[in-house]
Amino acid sequence: MSVFTTVSQPELEQFLQHYNVGQLVEFKGISEGIENTNYFVTTTTGRFVLTLFETLSPYDIPWYLELMSHLNQSGVPTAAPVADTDGCYLLVLCGKPAALVERISGAENLEPGVAHCRALGEAMGKMHIAGQSFAEENRANGRDLTWCKQSVQRVMQHLSASDTQLAIDEIAFQEQNPRSELPQGVIHADLFRDNALMDGNNVAGIIDFYFACHDALLYDLAIAVNDWCMGEESHVSEERMKALMAAYCDERPFTAEEQAAWPQMLRAAALRFWLSRLIDMHFPREGELTYVKDPDVFKNILLAHRA
Amino acid sequence: MSVFTTVSQPELEQFLQHYNVGQLVEFKGISEGIENTNYFVTTTTGRFVLTLFETLSPYDIPWYLELMSHLNQSGVPTAAPVADTDGCYLLVLCGKPAALVERISGAENLEPGVAHCRALGEAMGKMHIAGQSFAEENRANGRDLTWCKQSVQRVMQHLSASDTQLAIDEIAFQEQNPRSELPQGVIHADLFRDNALMDGNNVAGIIDFYFACHDALLYDLAIAVNDWCMGEESHVSEERMKALMAAYCDERPFTAEEQAAWPQMLRAAALRFWLSRLIDMHFPREGELTYVKDPDVFKNILLAHRA
Repeated sequence: MSVFTTVSQPELEQFLQHYNVGQLVEFKGISEGIENTNYFVTTTTGRFVLTLFETLSPYDIPWYLELMSHLNQSGVPTAAPVADTDGCYLLVLCGKPAALVERISGAENLEPGVAHCRALGEAMGKMHIAGQSFAEENRANGRDLTWCKQSVQRVMQHLSASDTQLAIDEIAFQEQNPRSELPQGVIHADLFRDNALMDGNNVAGIIDFYFACHDALLYDLAIAVNDWCMGEESHVSEERMKALMAAYCDERPFTAEEQAAWPQMLRAAALRFWLSRLIDMHFPREGELTYVKDPDVFKNILLAHRA
Repeated sequence: MSVFTTVSQPELEQFLQHYNVGQLVEFKGISEGIENTNYFVTTTTGRFVLTLFETLSPYDIPWYLELMSHLNQSGVPTAAPVADTDGCYLLVLCGKPAALVERISGAENLEPGVAHCRALGEAMGKMHIAGQSFAEENRANGRDLTWCKQSVQRVMQHLSASDTQLAIDEIAFQEQNPRSELPQGVIHADLFRDNALMDGNNVAGIIDFYFACHDALLYDLAIAVNDWCMGEESHVSEERMKALMAAYCDERPFTAEEQAAWPQMLRAAALRFWLSRLIDMHFPREGELTYVKDPDVFKNILLAHRA
């Protein structure tokens, strides 16, 4: 029942023959992310991440790979998928859809300071601008307000009356000013600290684009701020948030509507992750590969933003 | 080359017949920790974590399991190993040493506040007191100052001159006042945020005892404080640290020597994790299951403590 797919050395060597990447030197399983099986792969020509897609539909995957390629070619620090000798990004390995992506040389920094937040803001600004020229069709956000409503229905049997009321109130507030009226574009939608590998104070590369979709650009920023800039007792660190937002605005200045909507976006982002963590806790999926994360972290962030 | 061992349902069902835990309901692979293969296992009588030990010597494992059992029976919130019908904790599954441990009902909280730090301090105090009555022989710390020196030798080819000097200076400072002269006991030695599952503001259970050893009790506390109480820009949050230490001292008051040695211990703990992260980065092991974590986080913590 584990989703981890075991790839043998002969299978991998045969798979790599579809690419111009030289000979296999070594490979090893990694476990970041719970949606896919990932291996670090080293060949005589470079270092790669091999992903076997365990849950995504094979019809959806090319969109993500094309996006990663487009952003990389536009100069955004992102991992680029590697095309096989026929120009394809998506192949099959062990009966699963599989892709080879360049491996970013960087490390996770789970204690970002002002300089890291500044670098992330700049990278996000570049990413949002480059996303505007992404030619593929728009991909809807599967975790939108409708999903939030459905999620509250699912988890409310496990919630206190006051928590249910909090979720319902917040959804009603968000519906009053739909974020669809703010500037839209391609967003990462999950740019937490573990999804940008750092090289010192610089962003070496943004990874894990498999929640990317079309939504309000400001919402993407709010998701990142709620994680990268979180300070004491569920309150945002003003210093880190200012650094991140100033660097972002140097790339793409806010509209007046966005400035006004900022507090609402921080709440929308907190709501979405509070609910998904509640779902993860009360309805764990088969093949879940990690301990559950405490949903209260995002409930408290939501409460702090509402206060 | 992946260390993840795939256990089949028939193999697991046969394995569970050694225990009085009823019938298998479901199981799924998890990936916390890079030393072991872990599965969540649900039976008709309870929820468990099954661990297959990939790197530890089978001769060393019983010590850890006995410690977990002793602490649990002493009222410390820890996961208890399950004995088979012969009274044994350590069995073999798929050719690997394997143990079944009760699964803690709790969640990771990677953004601990004052209340969480207070709860952790209390749990650590209880753990250290209970450890004093652990009857097994003392187990040396494999990551002691000698290990630190060897690690500097290994990584210095990859370090700047100033970083090498920093490490050498710090080791010399630590040698001046050996922590072996402080009160000793059984320590966890890796009590980071992801190794205590929380139930709201309470510690539901401490997990992952596979770095436990005999060393200065104060050093254990410093390891925890450097992670649980980390605030802005590599500086400890005084508020969280005070809460953690006050709760600890309610259980086990500091000696005068410990009070004086506290700044030194914070530095010793930062040094050890700076060096191990440097080793992880520059000498990745086969079967490594995660992205590397930025060593600079702990270098900066060390610098902040020295300032």
